[in-house]
Amino acid sequence: MVIREMTNHATLDFLARTHFGRLACTKGAQPYIVPIYFSYNNNCLYSFSTVGQKIDWMRTNPLVCIQVDEVVNSEQWISIIVFGRFEELPDVPGWHGERSLAHDLLQMKAMWWEPGYAKTILHGTERPLVPIFYRIHIREITGHSASPEDCKTS
Amino acid sequence: MVIREMTNHATLDFLARTHFGRLACTKGAQPYIVPIYFSYNNNCLYSFSTVGQKIDWMRTNPLVCIQVDEVVNSEQWISIIVFGRFEELPDVPGWHGERSLAHDLLQMKAMWWEPGYAKTILHGTERPLVPIFYRIHIREITGHSASPEDCKTS
Repeated sequence: MVIREMTNHATLDFLARTHFGRLACTKGAQPYIVPIYFSYNNNCLYSFSTVGQKIDWMRTNPLVCIQVDEVVNSEQWISIIVFGRFEELPDVPGWHGERSLAHDLLQMKAMWWEPGYAKTILHGTERPLVPIFYRIHIREITGHSASPEDCKTS
Repeated sequence: MVIREMTNHATLDFLARTHFGRLACTKGAQPYIVPIYFSYNNNCLYSFSTVGQKIDWMRTNPLVCIQVDEVVNSEQWISIIVFGRFEELPDVPGWHGERSLAHDLLQMKAMWWEPGYAKTILHGTERPLVPIFYRIHIREITGHSASPEDCKTS
């Protein structure tokens, strides 16, 4: 297997046609990962969640990392790493346009079943369902693609 | 869909039968995610890698997070989050037993094709292949399982 770097254009193309990945945020020296659904638009990843540890941590430290991959088999895969910055899209009049955009982008991909909006029972009680819309501004993106060693193009 | 917490026993059982996940480490306030292969043994996850950003960061800050999931469909999945501490298994006599254990555990799962050991071409030059064995001591583990809302057991 040979692993090669992807071009910036190829990584953005890949992000635009996928919608599932993992997001890491950090509190102090401790990282935390959660699966997320997102929709790419204009150098940002849009997503939403209910209030919880992920949102709390990103409100305190907006630096995040998102990893997205597509595995055909063990010798043929793509993996993208995004370094970015969290920005909340609050439910106030000045942000109406951005929230509508996020809503439209996410609805296009039919993600309303995602964990962030699911009924969650923790310690016997239901978690409140208050949707938080946010976007991740992409600061840096890198991608690698793997192919069998005897295949010289990636 | 209903999301429920898993028992500690169920999360460890799940880890023991899986071997692929994502690891997050942190440098300063910036998190970083990479896919990893691992093998669970005695409250630790064993893995290996070549020298690179992930190893550099974990040597400086050993606090990590690993996320592992199994998705049957959008309403039936398991996701496990591990908070742990990185420990390198150096290639010196006093660590021979631990390195052999790591080697055996990883070889059992036939992971030698994993990215950490693949021939990687970056900026036109090959990356050196020096295997670094390490383990993550599990400090805290949580797991959630999702099932369709009309299914009352998870």
